[in-house]
Amino acid sequence: MQTHLPSELAARLKKDDNGLFAAIAQQWDTREVLMLAWMNEESLALTLKEKRAVYWSRSRQELWRKGDTSGHYQFVRDVLLDCDGDAILLLVDQVGAACHTGTRTCFHSILESE
Amino acid sequence: MQTHLPSELAARLKKDDNGLFAAIAQQWDTREVLMLAWMNEESLALTLKEKRAVYWSRSRQELWRKGDTSGHYQFVRDVLLDCDGDAILLLVDQVGAACHTGTRTCFHSILESE
Repeated sequence: MQTHLPSELAARLKKDDNGLFAAIAQQWDTREVLMLAWMNEESLALTLKEKRAVYWSRSRQELWRKGDTSGHYQFVRDVLLDCDGDAILLLVDQVGAACHTGTRTCFHSILESE
Repeated sequence: MQTHLPSELAARLKKDDNGLFAAIAQQWDTREVLMLAWMNEESLALTLKEKRAVYWSRSRQELWRKGDTSGHYQFVRDVLLDCDGDAILLLVDQVGAACHTGTRTCFHSILESE
């Protein structure tokens, strides 16, 4: 049975043509930005219910329960919506590496430094 | 004259059907996540060149030089690309409020707390 969002919350989300919106995962204590992924309504509903990050995989076109394969779960402490409803910020406790390359964060390629 | 990205960098970007990719702005010292916006190649080229955040406004369909209207500039210290090339993390020094509502960050609506 599909998990649904409360209708009031669903109405506040601004989704793209594929029904998706961006989700940023940030380590709650160090404040490190770990990754950016995508959610649909169902994945957000599951994230809020299970307090584990669940995304939508655009490449596989299916729900992506972060950690089910890797063990690198993201336990969710807080979920914040932005002012125009098209992005979510997850404050998480990241187990191990967030990135599939094995690094802690997906943002590891510096384009420009001061 | 349009500012261009180096071709090697442009080749690493994975853009959506509108030529856009997501950009997260994070305050460099407090690590607060300020906002999520969108960039095209030109806006990233300008950001790297001018060391000020320049986005692409999806609603206005034009370059958006953050701060030109509000004075709330984002001075860029570092730019990081993620592992699959579809998101950018800007470490910035935010002048004033990042959000058009006047709050420091756009993420101020809590959906769930522990």
